[in-house]
Amino acid sequence: MSRVYNFSAGPAVLPEAVLKEAAAEMLDYRGTGMSVMEMSHRSKAYDDIIKAAESDLRDLLHIPDNYRVLFLQGGASQQFAMVPMNLMKNRAADYIITGQWAKKAYQEAGMYGQANAIASSEDRTFSYIPDCSDLPVSENADYVYICENNTIYGTKFWTLPDTKGKDLVADQSSCFLSEPVDVAKYGLIFAGAQKNVGPAGTVIVIAREDLIREDVLEGTPAMLRYKTHADAGSLYNTPPTYGIYICGKVFKWLKEMGGLEEMKKRNEKKAKLLYDFLDQSRLFKGTVEKKDRSLMNVPFITGDEALDALFVKESKAAGLENLKGHRTVGGMRASIYNAMPMEGVEKLVAFMDDFEKKRG
Amino acid sequence: MSRVYNFSAGPAVLPEAVLKEAAAEMLDYRGTGMSVMEMSHRSKAYDDIIKAAESDLRDLLHIPDNYRVLFLQGGASQQFAMVPMNLMKNRAADYIITGQWAKKAYQEAGMYGQANAIASSEDRTFSYIPDCSDLPVSENADYVYICENNTIYGTKFWTLPDTKGKDLVADQSSCFLSEPVDVAKYGLIFAGAQKNVGPAGTVIVIAREDLIREDVLEGTPAMLRYKTHADAGSLYNTPPTYGIYICGKVFKWLKEMGGLEEMKKRNEKKAKLLYDFLDQSRLFKGTVEKKDRSLMNVPFITGDEALDALFVKESKAAGLENLKGHRTVGGMRASIYNAMPMEGVEKLVAFMDDFEKKRG
Repeated sequence: MSRVYNFSAGPAVLPEAVLKEAAAEMLDYRGTGMSVMEMSHRSKAYDDIIKAAESDLRDLLHIPDNYRVLFLQGGASQQFAMVPMNLMKNRAADYIITGQWAKKAYQEAGMYGQANAIASSEDRTFSYIPDCSDLPVSENADYVYICENNTIYGTKFWTLPDTKGKDLVADQSSCFLSEPVDVAKYGLIFAGAQKNVGPAGTVIVIAREDLIREDVLEGTPAMLRYKTHADAGSLYNTPPTYGIYICGKVFKWLKEMGGLEEMKKRNEKKAKLLYDFLDQSRLFKGTVEKKDRSLMNVPFITGDEALDALFVKESKAAGLENLKGHRTVGGMRASIYNAMPMEGVEKLVAFMDDFEKKRG
Repeated sequence: MSRVYNFSAGPAVLPEAVLKEAAAEMLDYRGTGMSVMEMSHRSKAYDDIIKAAESDLRDLLHIPDNYRVLFLQGGASQQFAMVPMNLMKNRAADYIITGQWAKKAYQEAGMYGQANAIASSEDRTFSYIPDCSDLPVSENADYVYICENNTIYGTKFWTLPDTKGKDLVADQSSCFLSEPVDVAKYGLIFAGAQKNVGPAGTVIVIAREDLIREDVLEGTPAMLRYKTHADAGSLYNTPPTYGIYICGKVFKWLKEMGGLEEMKKRNEKKAKLLYDFLDQSRLFKGTVEKKDRSLMNVPFITGDEALDALFVKESKAAGLENLKGHRTVGGMRASIYNAMPMEGVEKLVAFMDDFEKKRG
């Protein structure tokens, strides 16, 4: 067995310790005589798994008691509809467009009411975060929506927008659990698991209780109401049991690593190594405004498409996988989530340095 | 490691060979240097996995070319909304109520149009399948809906209803791939994976192409449109990649076992052993009309609640797990899906015989 360094934007690298445990428990989870995949979601053993996952997540993020944690399905894309269907009681919401995913969420919300794009960075290929200190927040807006870390473009909101009293809804898929967060600043946070937390197919929602409403929009399916899942402790129907089990293992791993303060330090250190290299390189350059740089997703280019392609090919041969950039940005992108070890980034920078010396 | 015989109704037992392979591939899928969980859903390696899964499923069920196969999320419960949202162009549909899940589907459909309960077996705790040879099918019905195998009650449609030309929609969650099926008799089939196919969190939809429509009901989320997923080959957003991978392994296992004709024979043999025992027992009895008995879910009672409880407790101690019946039926239920080996049923019958001799 030989593991590569996997820079995929998602599904993405998971802690090796978690995978080893999962493999060891595959046929017999701790003396139950069955795999977690085979376990009734109503069983005592599974109840322990999902309760521990929620409890560890609450510990990691210091989630206040008046916030509910839901383990759902359908990914962030389904949240693009669930958010307006559940929260748009005035049929109005403000969206800040910082990338493709924010734009998709905005377009989906338009089916359910007045969705207003109150800021955007589309003019420069989403390479920055707009100034959000004094936005034209709509008076009747039910919420202000952001995609907090933009996976494709490599930007991050380092200052949350001034929502002028409106509830903030944040898609945190690609920065979830990468650093401490003050949950009380948000009305609702959601995150697809497949970037920083676990396998695809689980989406985690953290919502303030008063936003889990009975009076959702007409025609909202039972499965798309937060209340359905909140009332049933995420067990209204069979949840993605195995995915939640892996997420739970990642939460425990994060606690063992020292929690989110420590992860933030490690993530800053990893990102600094790569950004410092980019800033002194004559061949490679970052594509994003420095003040808005993500710690998780680092796009870079050489400016020469043929050279970019060669880099992707040769890096792959060197065991550095999935460095090809998103087609809308081009070039390369290194996703360096929690589970990417420092050595992976060191190997990448050494490879880039070498490539630059040979080809630059 | 000691495996139990797991009679859970779902999530349920999986083939041991599949779990062993999954464990062995957990840290390095066939030389890729990563787990399938860590793999981009846009990668070549994953594309091979999902394409092989679909192709093997098509082989197993001889799915005609004018039917699409979709791997979705949200379980059968989400299909309860997707079916009317996508198919109810006349805003009318007929439902046959043979259990709790059919009833939930019927209630959900009522949000979107006129849902008619044209037959029901609720009068006798859903212990039979109503005569469906001459139903009052509505002239404007967009489809006729059945739950083909009723997990909780242990009944099965052995003859499909005469829909008088309307499209038949079937929830096959608990009988999917347990026997050959003539797909052309249906407009749409769906099945949650977590009973007979794989881990919870994946639902498989097989739909005739003309039912994958552009003109869905207003307000249908992008994620709840069949067309969204059909157009993208189930890769509109990140699908439940690991779940689909396990389903794919189960499909290969079924082919190795001889396909669905062979599975039907094995399932009939397993069920016969258990039903024959029930029919001669003085202590235990089945709860379902004989002509409507499911091959997958076998509920039975002693008629004495204390004795039922003792049976469940002692069977568990003997390594026969999850035999407690659903609360609406009481007593016991043995789910004997494809992956339950003959020896499991033999052990159960021997245990029942022994229990009857001691306590009967």
